[in-house]
Amino acid sequence: MDKELKYAVFGAGSWATAIVKMLCENLDEIGWYMRSVYTKEHLLKEQHNPSYLSSVEFDTDKLKLSNDINEIASYADVLIFVIPSAFIYGELQKLTVDITDKTIVSAVKGIIPESGLLVGEHFHDVYKTPFENIAVIAGPCHAEEVALERLSYLTISCADQEKAQAIADKLSSNYIKTKISDDVIGTEYAVMLKNIYAIAAGIAHGLGYGDNFQSVLMSNAIREMKRFIKKVHKMKRNINNSAYLGDLLVTGYSVFSRNRMFGNMVGKGYTVKSAQMEMNMVAEGYYATNSAYLLNQKNEKKTNMPIIDAVYAILYQNKNPKKVFKKLTEKLD
Amino acid sequence: MDKELKYAVFGAGSWATAIVKMLCENLDEIGWYMRSVYTKEHLLKEQHNPSYLSSVEFDTDKLKLSNDINEIASYADVLIFVIPSAFIYGELQKLTVDITDKTIVSAVKGIIPESGLLVGEHFHDVYKTPFENIAVIAGPCHAEEVALERLSYLTISCADQEKAQAIADKLSSNYIKTKISDDVIGTEYAVMLKNIYAIAAGIAHGLGYGDNFQSVLMSNAIREMKRFIKKVHKMKRNINNSAYLGDLLVTGYSVFSRNRMFGNMVGKGYTVKSAQMEMNMVAEGYYATNSAYLLNQKNEKKTNMPIIDAVYAILYQNKNPKKVFKKLTEKLD
Repeated sequence: MDKELKYAVFGAGSWATAIVKMLCENLDEIGWYMRSVYTKEHLLKEQHNPSYLSSVEFDTDKLKLSNDINEIASYADVLIFVIPSAFIYGELQKLTVDITDKTIVSAVKGIIPESGLLVGEHFHDVYKTPFENIAVIAGPCHAEEVALERLSYLTISCADQEKAQAIADKLSSNYIKTKISDDVIGTEYAVMLKNIYAIAAGIAHGLGYGDNFQSVLMSNAIREMKRFIKKVHKMKRNINNSAYLGDLLVTGYSVFSRNRMFGNMVGKGYTVKSAQMEMNMVAEGYYATNSAYLLNQKNEKKTNMPIIDAVYAILYQNKNPKKVFKKLTEKLD
Repeated sequence: MDKELKYAVFGAGSWATAIVKMLCENLDEIGWYMRSVYTKEHLLKEQHNPSYLSSVEFDTDKLKLSNDINEIASYADVLIFVIPSAFIYGELQKLTVDITDKTIVSAVKGIIPESGLLVGEHFHDVYKTPFENIAVIAGPCHAEEVALERLSYLTISCADQEKAQAIADKLSSNYIKTKISDDVIGTEYAVMLKNIYAIAAGIAHGLGYGDNFQSVLMSNAIREMKRFIKKVHKMKRNINNSAYLGDLLVTGYSVFSRNRMFGNMVGKGYTVKSAQMEMNMVAEGYYATNSAYLLNQKNEKKTNMPIIDAVYAILYQNKNPKKVFKKLTEKLD
């Protein structure tokens, strides 16, 4: 990779907007695909995203904005996907240009529900993207704090460490520190699993459990995450690195996390459907719970994952949160 | 150990009061030593501690209260010390009765500043207490949530696993779950170190760092804690168990932690002395920082512990918190 590579971001939510901001610190031109014509027009006219991180002002001369996914996919060499996992399958259906030789970066926080695949695996299967061209951006990083330029750390994973470093360099700035990793699969699963644990934290809070229990829940969650990831991709990794434990903590302890908020409503007695309607969205962790559960069902020897099982029982089997969590407390230590 | 063993608690702060409450669920009589005559009289008259967890009502028929440490030490077989580390040396000077054969349980959160020893080590050195008679109670557990009977988990460590279990049984109830461990030294150091990391979290908050950074700090803190404890006492342990990681999280993320509050004031620009005067107390982590630093100075090969070093530089070397933390951010990942 050299500095002439062109970068593009796909998606216009808060995390996508934060990543464009980071790239603007280092690049003179960034491709940016968004579905909404209104968002694009507003960005051009007002220099900020109307719906997310609207305090962030962009130098729109740097932005190559388009509502045509193929235009931006053709333009760039490094394609950063930041579309919620629930919508990415539909968006990718529109892709008709050849992207075989491009570098695919996933900043999607979950599995593609339609295929049960990680974003990287999906590109590998459908577009023949070689694994060494697949990268993942992991936190811990609330987009809102990027908007405020508060110091944050990212981990960029790619089998090709030079590619990882090149992407990391484009994201680094005085408020973003980066490190690289070769654990593409592990970091992508960690990003997905933490949202389930954030739902669990929310349910616990909604049920009236306190801070003492939350810390036990998180301590058990990181051990469960370690077992889960080890089963799907065994390699030497320190699960306490920021990309795994740090990301779990920033999500699990955040009262702003939509996953935690969703769990909190369910814990307080909302049905899953009414919580989703009330929030006017479906939390990423909702899909992740199903994906993680199904993945474990396929294992000949099941991973012991009482927290994910509990969340699954509540969200998908209509079990009583209070009873399920009472049983869960017996399994934690 | 059989059920006829008598238990006593030494100290009358919030954690001591919470432990007496736990014991009251299982025992008909508990010895309770406190320095303050007023606290004792108030307890007898009003059935609650006037200064800490005053919502907790005690059946005073169960309590053998005394202001004479020797009376209570003579009475009991299992002596649970819950005196702040800054005062324990002075209190123990009053002990004149023979306690060689007693079981000593430390619920003190730190090293004895005068000797640089863990509480267990101190008893072993001064009173010839055999190591198999020394136990430690570790959280994660805010005393305030015990008062509310919110589900909490404790770890009881003792080289003698039967003793550990016997103590655990006396503390267990429908709101307290216990597990046992043989890592006496490791859990006692963890209890001490977490207070230093809570100060670090407070300083970071006071300096304006956000949640993204806090999660990176905690992720680095647990790795640093693992290195530190491994050096002082190498054995197989899972640092992500509740007694280590859980306790770190409940303290580091609590806005009520006195250590975090102290750090926050220092981060906001108070001098160490003025923060201590403002809080009208000295946070446990203040002494722990010095002890941990000095302990590492004695190591031939120093443990890499950038967070403790940073807190030490700020609290004991009068270094500028902003500059120290700026440098620290370069060492974290």
